[in-house]
Amino acid sequence: MDQKFASSAVVNSKDVNGTAVYGIEGEKVGEIDHLTIEKNSGTVTFAVMTFGGFLGFGQDEYPIPWKKLSYDVSKDAFVTDISEEQLKGAPRTHPDWHSDREWEKRSFDYFSVPYYWM
Amino acid sequence: MDQKFASSAVVNSKDVNGTAVYGIEGEKVGEIDHLTIEKNSGTVTFAVMTFGGFLGFGQDEYPIPWKKLSYDVSKDAFVTDISEEQLKGAPRTHPDWHSDREWEKRSFDYFSVPYYWM
Repeated sequence: MDQKFASSAVVNSKDVNGTAVYGIEGEKVGEIDHLTIEKNSGTVTFAVMTFGGFLGFGQDEYPIPWKKLSYDVSKDAFVTDISEEQLKGAPRTHPDWHSDREWEKRSFDYFSVPYYWM
Repeated sequence: MDQKFASSAVVNSKDVNGTAVYGIEGEKVGEIDHLTIEKNSGTVTFAVMTFGGFLGFGQDEYPIPWKKLSYDVSKDAFVTDISEEQLKGAPRTHPDWHSDREWEKRSFDYFSVPYYWM
């Protein structure tokens, strides 16, 4: 199996974009469209997932905190413990969500992830 | 002008890949092929630059510490104070440079950038 990331602790931003994300039951929940990166600190803040309209969700992109993803070597893909239900209930995006600290707070709180800016 | 990143402090990993990098004299020095990201911490470690063989450099990719880049809104591109001479003298890559802490140390020391892992 050609591993995108091998066992390395380091990933390539080109390989991340388009990579599948699986749920804890082994079902594919979507794929990563792109990451958002805080420029000055060089911190990855969100992985923005897309679902290709498959689930009929009301929006095109679902940002989830990067820390909610882990890499599964055997699948050569990312795995998350976020359920479909949880994703559907997540804070809705708006055009400037990625530079809206209040929005980021709501998202990180919703997913119980420590703020990346503290 | 259609700004890739506007004035946001946050950049999109898709927009970063392929973005031009200019030197302090305003000359284009290359472009960003991809970023390397430490998976667990979500820290961007290097921007890997390419030069399309134009300069006849002895290798295809030149990783530079992310902190050596700043974003110039007026150019809608990245700017670095690294000179061509400095780039040519930088530590040469090898197949596993991105997971080789000793190599990373040499590179960060060479460019006088604080280690991202401390």
